[in-house]
This record gives sequence, C-alpha cells and structure tokens, in this order.
Amino acid sequence: MTRTVIESKTKTVTIGFDEPFCVIGERINPTGRKKLAAELEAGDFSTVEKDALEQVACGAMVLDVNAGVVYNSNPNPNETEPPLMRSVIELVQGLVDVPLCIDSSVPGALEAGLQVAQGRPLLNSVTGEEERLELVLPLVKKYNVPVVAISNDDTGISEDPDVRFAVARKIVERAADFGIPAHDIVVDPLVMPIGAMATAGQQVFALVRRLREELGVNTTCGASNISFGLPHRHGINAAFLPMAIGAGMTSAIMNPVRPVEMEAIRAANFLMNHDANGYDWIKFSRVLDAVAEGTPFPDASKASEAAAGGGRGGRRRRRG
Amino acid sequence: MTRTVIESKTKTVTIGFDEPFCVIGERINPTGRKKLAAELEAGDFSTVEKDALEQVACGAMVLDVNAGVVYNSNPNPNETEPPLMRSVIELVQGLVDVPLCIDSSVPGALEAGLQVAQGRPLLNSVTGEEERLELVLPLVKKYNVPVVAISNDDTGISEDPDVRFAVARKIVERAADFGIPAHDIVVDPLVMPIGAMATAGQQVFALVRRLREELGVNTTCGASNISFGLPHRHGINAAFLPMAIGAGMTSAIMNPVRPVEMEAIRAANFLMNHDANGYDWIKFSRVLDAVAEGTPFPDASKASEAAAGGGRGGRRRRRG
Repeated sequence: MTRTVIESKTKTVTIGFDEPFCVIGERINPTGRKKLAAELEAGDFSTVEKDALEQVACGAMVLDVNAGVVYNSNPNPNETEPPLMRSVIELVQGLVDVPLCIDSSVPGALEAGLQVAQGRPLLNSVTGEEERLELVLPLVKKYNVPVVAISNDDTGISEDPDVRFAVARKIVERAADFGIPAHDIVVDPLVMPIGAMATAGQQVFALVRRLREELGVNTTCGASNISFGLPHRHGINAAFLPMAIGAGMTSAIMNPVRPVEMEAIRAANFLMNHDANGYDWIKFSRVLDAVAEGTPFPDASKASEAAAGGGRGGRRRRRG
Repeated sequence: MTRTVIESKTKTVTIGFDEPFCVIGERINPTGRKKLAAELEAGDFSTVEKDALEQVACGAMVLDVNAGVVYNSNPNPNETEPPLMRSVIELVQGLVDVPLCIDSSVPGALEAGLQVAQGRPLLNSVTGEEERLELVLPLVKKYNVPVVAISNDDTGISEDPDVRFAVARKIVERAADFGIPAHDIVVDPLVMPIGAMATAGQQVFALVRRLREELGVNTTCGASNISFGLPHRHGINAAFLPMAIGAGMTSAIMNPVRPVEMEAIRAANFLMNHDANGYDWIKFSRVLDAVAEGTPFPDASKASEAAAGGGRGGRRRRRG
C-alpha cells in the first residue's frame, strides 16, 4: 500500500489510497498576488500569517510555501528567494503545526527550505526536464523527503495523456536510480482547463487510475486549473474533486478557504469510507450551518476547532 | 455501445455511456406525500401539474409517474391504481413532452400505464423476485419497452454487493429468455445510506463499474438514499452523483428541483465530455446567477428556457 509520509515537528500526514484526501493549501504564494509580493519585499509578513492560520483552520493538512517574488530592488531570484523562503518557513512553522510543502523553481530556495523545515516536508517539484531531474533528485535523496513530480519534460506539456504518463514513469525510474522509492513520488498528471480541452477531465481520471495501478504512486494536482476561464468555476471544481478522488487521486494543491470545494472533499471522504462514522462530516456540517447564517468560513472553522478543544492559534489537533 | 432508448410522442432520450446523465424526475409520487395522496383521491391534479412543469423546467429528461395511493374510500390498489395511473399519465403527457417512467408495484397499473403512454416509456420496475419476473417481463416484451431492474430478490436486499450483482445478472438472463436485450435493462444496484453502512458509496461505485463492464447495462439509482439521515444531505448527494457518474452510472431517479444536485450533474457532464463546448454549463450558470440573486430555481430555469426560445408551457426544446 503506497503511503507518502510528510511530517512537521509534531504532526504526521500520510498521503495514501486508504487515507482522507490530503488538502495542500496553496495560498502562501506571491505568484499573481501583487500585494503579497510587495509586502514580502518590504518585509511585511502579515498576509502570510493570516493565510497560514486561515488555511489550517479551514482544513489544510499541509501548507505549500512559495517565496517566488521578483524583487524590484534585485531582479535575481537566485539571490533573493533562498533567504525569503527560509524566513517564511520559519514564520509559518512557528504559527501552525502542519507539515509544509517547499515550492520553488529556484534550486537554492528548495535547499534553503529543506535546511530550515522541521520534520519531513514535501518538495515541490521535480519535472521530467533533464536539468531539473539532475538538480532536484539529489536534494530529495540527501534530505530523504518526498517530492511532487510534474509530468512535463523538455518538450513541454503534452496534450497526449500517454506522453504525460511516460514522463511520470521516467521520473519514477530516474528517482529509483537515486534510491528514491516510488512511494516518495507524488505525481501531478497536469490538469488542463476543460474550457480549452474537452477531454481534460477524462484524461485526468484515466491517468490517475493508471498512475495508481501501474506505477503505484500517489497523485496531486492544481485542482482549480480544471475550471479556468469558466463561469461558476467553484461548481466545476466541486464536481471535479469528488470524481478525481473516486478515480484514485490522493491529494490536491488548492485553496482550502473555499467552503464549496471543502464540502465536496469532505463528502467524498465520507463516500470513500475515509471518515469513520461520519465524524468529520457531522462536525463540518456545523461549520456549514454557521456559514449559512452569515459567518465567514474561516471564522466558522476556527470556532468549530475551538469548540472541539484544539483551537490554539491554528495549532489544532487532528485525528489519526 | 449500450443505448437505452426512451421516447415520448415527440422526443427521444437515450441513456448511454456516451450521453449526458439522464435525470429522471421523481416528484410525481404520492408515497410519503400525504397532501398529494389526498389531492389525488379527491381528483385534484394541481400538484401533479406543478411538479411536471417544474421538474422539466429544472432539467428532468424523463418523468417518473407513480400513482400508488391507498384510497381511504377503497383500500384495494389493484382496483384504484390502474385508472389513476392512466389519468395521471394522460395529464402529464398533455403538459410536457418528455418521455415517462411508469412506476408501480401493482401489475395492473403498469399495464394501464403502458396502454396510454405515448412513445416508448421506461417501465419501473422488475426485481429478482420470481413472482415479479413472471409478471413484469411479459409486459416488457409485449410492449417492447425498457425496464428498471432492481437488484433484490426473494431473500430481500443483500448487503453483499456480489449478491446484488448476481441478482442483476439473473434478471438480465431471464430477460434474455423472453427475448429482451440487455440494452433495455437499466439496473438499479441499490444505494444504501452511508450513515448506516460505511461502505455504501464504494459498493455502488464498484457495482456500477462491474454492471457496465461485465453485463453491458445502463444503471440508475434512487440517488438521495445515500445521504439518508445525515445533516447537509444535499452536500453528500452533490458529491455522490459526480462520483457515480465517473464510475459509469448513466441515470438517476431524483428530485431535479434542487439546484445543488443539478449543478453537480451538469458539471459532471462537462467533465465527462458530454457537454460540447460547455454549452449547457454556460446556460446553466445564468440560472445559478439568477438563483444567487434570489429567484427560485424553477422560475429561473423557466426564464432561461423562455429566453432560449423553448418556453412553451414546459414543452422545451432539447439539443441532440
């Protein structure tokens, strides 16, 4: 049974076929968030703090940390991103106790993150690109951490799912050459927007099934890509996530501060028999009651955690 | 490719693996609706009319008609149900142009319905019970109609999915003895409440896959059973339906006057590549906009149909 173990100093999260779906919070990422980027360059971490606490309150089990700011004062991210990654990780792991996912395209930032992250973080990411394989897999081996493997390579992102599967297989094989086991590779089969590619949903469901059955790996995705450009995209996301979970997807990098998507995931966990006695669903239903009465989702979630006795600044308890 | 063809006088609906999910509206059924039962005994069909128009406006592609009232004035449904079935069917097919699903446990009511229904209605239902097989399959053959096959038998409803599969196989084989092809059998694998049986969701998903792959049949279910007794059951239903569709379920008998479930189904159709260019999703998103602004879902749906040029008393046009 494939189990990808991620740890903070005090908490273990297992991504696996027999586990509740692993929600990796995507918010701590300045890409496309100008205000956050400007704050980070100015040394203001208030949004990061808010995002960390809110995401964990709303149900994120792992937090992605991306420090990919291009500073106005210094346009070289190889110089600026590693120290910023270090600072953000130290801040976040002082605030919340969930494991982290160290997310960067800058190898120095990945290693800086690995040096300061406590426990066993998830590394995000390696691809099938030769240069990236040679840079990232040694870090994965050296720090003994699991890694997200995105199924594109030097030729780009293929629209052919068979090619994307072949890229995933190549990464798993190359990792094995480094002594990295398949259970430490979490493959992202790449989710295309259905607005642009009508077969995008079916591709992902078929790929997830193959990745699980043929390579025995866990899977993740940038879930909201599926609905890019469409009206009422939360409705698309909220159907996509249960369907992906039914097909065998075991995690997603996503915004957990959205009640519609989180409701869909919690219902899917229950339907997959990953929520014993519906404990989590019934608890979550009280949060939905509060949201229906007008309480913002993060506040309702925090109140629910506090009532359950775990509400210490987001350092909440989690069952097994 | 399995195609179950259902027809009204003017409209054809195909249940199939490559078709949008077939929503069979369940509302015209006095079971558990005391007010409707009393109205029907008194000859008042106003609720039936409203239910017919609203369900079709909201997206029902087929309407189930059940006339199972036990009259206070005459407790013998063998006498009262056949003429009532005839009246309700004649009324409904004068109001809307979708095909009908004739639903009764009284054989005389099934035959009365078959005599007056125009086109090719769906018969609901046969089971694996010997008496029922012998009564219903000859009607299916005589009238050349498709039939819903519920996977219980004389021993009741098994909690073992292998037994329910075996019952379905038996019905398909017995139907073949009558010259009824598998594509005219729509199997209901029986959905149990996850609140009572933790494996109920997984059972259905696995059964639907087997029924499709091994018996080549279309499938249906009473979808809302899955959430029986649970809080926020629409959230469970709205995750269950996309998961069932992803597993291969091709229809459900359900309440279409619920925007949450209908949104989930329309999103799932899009994700299964059964909504070319997202035409239906984009149209439906305007209905959701109106619902968000406070318009009741049936009214918003009717306005959308009228705007699309199909709004003649519920006799709406349908693509393909």
